[in-house]
Amino acid sequence: MNVSILSIGNELLNGFTLNSNSLWVGKTLTNLGCSISMQITVKDEEKDIIYGLDTLLKSKPKFIIITGGLGPTDDDITRQVIFKYVGSDTKFDRGYWETLSERYLENGIIISESNKNQAIVPTTGSIIPNPIGSARGYMFSIQNTKLILLPGVPMEMESMMKNTVVPFIKKSIKKFLLIKTFRTTGFPETIIMEKVKRILTSNHNSNIGYYPSLYGVDVRISSYSRKNLDELSEKVSIALGDKIYSEGEKNIEEIIVQKLIEKKKTISIAESCTGGLISHRVTEVPNSSKVLKGGQIVYSDDAKINNLGVDEKIIHSFGAVSSQTAASMANRIKSLYLTDYGLSATGIAGPGGGSKKKAVGLVYIGLAFGDQTKVKKLKLGSERSKNKIRTSQHALNYLRTAIPI
Amino acid sequence: MNVSILSIGNELLNGFTLNSNSLWVGKTLTNLGCSISMQITVKDEEKDIIYGLDTLLKSKPKFIIITGGLGPTDDDITRQVIFKYVGSDTKFDRGYWETLSERYLENGIIISESNKNQAIVPTTGSIIPNPIGSARGYMFSIQNTKLILLPGVPMEMESMMKNTVVPFIKKSIKKFLLIKTFRTTGFPETIIMEKVKRILTSNHNSNIGYYPSLYGVDVRISSYSRKNLDELSEKVSIALGDKIYSEGEKNIEEIIVQKLIEKKKTISIAESCTGGLISHRVTEVPNSSKVLKGGQIVYSDDAKINNLGVDEKIIHSFGAVSSQTAASMANRIKSLYLTDYGLSATGIAGPGGGSKKKAVGLVYIGLAFGDQTKVKKLKLGSERSKNKIRTSQHALNYLRTAIPI
Repeated sequence: MNVSILSIGNELLNGFTLNSNSLWVGKTLTNLGCSISMQITVKDEEKDIIYGLDTLLKSKPKFIIITGGLGPTDDDITRQVIFKYVGSDTKFDRGYWETLSERYLENGIIISESNKNQAIVPTTGSIIPNPIGSARGYMFSIQNTKLILLPGVPMEMESMMKNTVVPFIKKSIKKFLLIKTFRTTGFPETIIMEKVKRILTSNHNSNIGYYPSLYGVDVRISSYSRKNLDELSEKVSIALGDKIYSEGEKNIEEIIVQKLIEKKKTISIAESCTGGLISHRVTEVPNSSKVLKGGQIVYSDDAKINNLGVDEKIIHSFGAVSSQTAASMANRIKSLYLTDYGLSATGIAGPGGGSKKKAVGLVYIGLAFGDQTKVKKLKLGSERSKNKIRTSQHALNYLRTAIPI
Repeated sequence: MNVSILSIGNELLNGFTLNSNSLWVGKTLTNLGCSISMQITVKDEEKDIIYGLDTLLKSKPKFIIITGGLGPTDDDITRQVIFKYVGSDTKFDRGYWETLSERYLENGIIISESNKNQAIVPTTGSIIPNPIGSARGYMFSIQNTKLILLPGVPMEMESMMKNTVVPFIKKSIKKFLLIKTFRTTGFPETIIMEKVKRILTSNHNSNIGYYPSLYGVDVRISSYSRKNLDELSEKVSIALGDKIYSEGEKNIEEIIVQKLIEKKKTISIAESCTGGLISHRVTEVPNSSKVLKGGQIVYSDDAKINNLGVDEKIIHSFGAVSSQTAASMANRIKSLYLTDYGLSATGIAGPGGGSKKKAVGLVYIGLAFGDQTKVKKLKLGSERSKNKIRTSQHALNYLRTAIPI
């Protein structure tokens, strides 16, 4: 079943705001078995919104999800444009206005007159309740397509999708697209693809895509046939082996937290160049408090020596960015926090700070467990933010491969 | 000058990959003075790519930036589709193939046969070099529009834009759109808008947009007239006062690092519920090592007591999520790392872990400096990831307002 997405907002076009809504809607509806046929982003202007709608309607999707421009401010014109487009009159919903005013008062806020346009309702179509905000959504039929209008505030859009739109769309789905994802890290796209190609037969009847990112390469197989999908998945799983950290959508931090909980093991993390990112990623996972006891950000030699307890001589002889320092950091954090694993990262994140001997992007990862200590050296690029992400991914993968299956 | 963006890739539609390229291109070209009139995302399929191009060409933009589908794998069909669309024959560029093979060998990799299609070149149009990857870009003229094809790998796309495309587009710009952004945090969109509206006169002749996010509300003024922009900006600056943390595009962590460097002050951070996010954000800023000495992630009572040194009695009497613990955390981290400021956050990030007395989303932020300690209480929602972001933003803003101007 085909669905299209119309994203409305100057801020999405001029690079002010990331279009995370279209990602979320795409993912949610794809997992439901829909095929997203096209996505268009237009300005908050009547003629653009209409042109976008006209374009999407031509391919006759079952649904068009429209997000953005339902807020209370003057630049929010979606409501009036779409009401006009579908030929609906409007009225003022006094009941909703009163509810809204009361809800605001409960939170100690006197409602603004600007919110009044959020109580304007169409005389045709239906209303989609907003459980957490003031902008309600709307649904209209036009030809054989349903237009679904939702606010652009991600939390509100998501909760309205979950509560009303998804259950409604589910009813119309007959043929479910099945998807299996294999997530790998540490190898380039072409290597992964060739490993997969080697086991492919001509009649696998599935679709295979390769998606590289800073986190690694994801291999995604999709098919409408369970049998085809399962057969191919098994082969791919064997071909890629331990390169796969996740069969499914889970990211590496979720896999690690899950594995450590199962094994009843704990970790602590000492971060220099990643500056807290590894710990941040681990603590994105619910229940991570069961495995992460704590960590230190040691962003100066002082902190490495005085707070973490790395031997001053190691830093002076080998430098803060060295395999010796990485090893000591991992050992020290493990001792200080009394954990099973101690993970560390030290490097030159860039863009400055490099030298002839030690270039920007030089990173060491340390891992201590039992009485072992391992160190891995990485040579990354010159962009700080990307180096932090890459290092965190390598470090988490290093930890993953050390946890017994 | 109008520019449109065509993003190609199933992964962008099915919610697998965030379309960060369109954000980056939008921002880069907007800052150059272009107006992004529309953005379309289509599947890796010939008819979709053509429909997308046809749609964008109708509004006659000066440039269409096309990203994605130039990789070496089978699903990368952009090259052949566009060559056909513009009516160009192709040939095999043996010289480039040899260069590519050598470059791979230098990195110890034998080039894959799949990369061969990256050495296919058109007989018309021109080639855009790729300084860091194997997929080169292309430029074609069609009617009065220039089509610019770039790979979808963000780093490669960005470097090709910077090196070749931006300098080229710059030459065509006559009328520059001027933009001024005011970034605020801690107040809802309607409050910010009403404060601005109060000072607006009818003849300001500028465009004003309000952009709420988890980080606060950004107010963006744009105009082609320097005089109009400056006059209105001055008024908005006065109307919003200290609510503004940044005049321009800088985020709060950049502002803080800059301010602390100027004042020659240092910070340390003790994080519980934010799990490293505050430190991660600060260390995203180049030169943050001049101000951040280090920090601790204290994700367990043990870590708070034994590693950070919060008095056991405080935790037992008031709980780990309390104003007393937040205050002690800020003081302890400041003492341990010998910094001017000590910042802390403790709370219940969710989704679990709440109780009748202490609901999910309850957070305390602590700040210690000189002999003062301040604590701020927040009541946030139930989503872990959003609570972490909101808390980090409040904490950084709390620190910002404490640094003398």
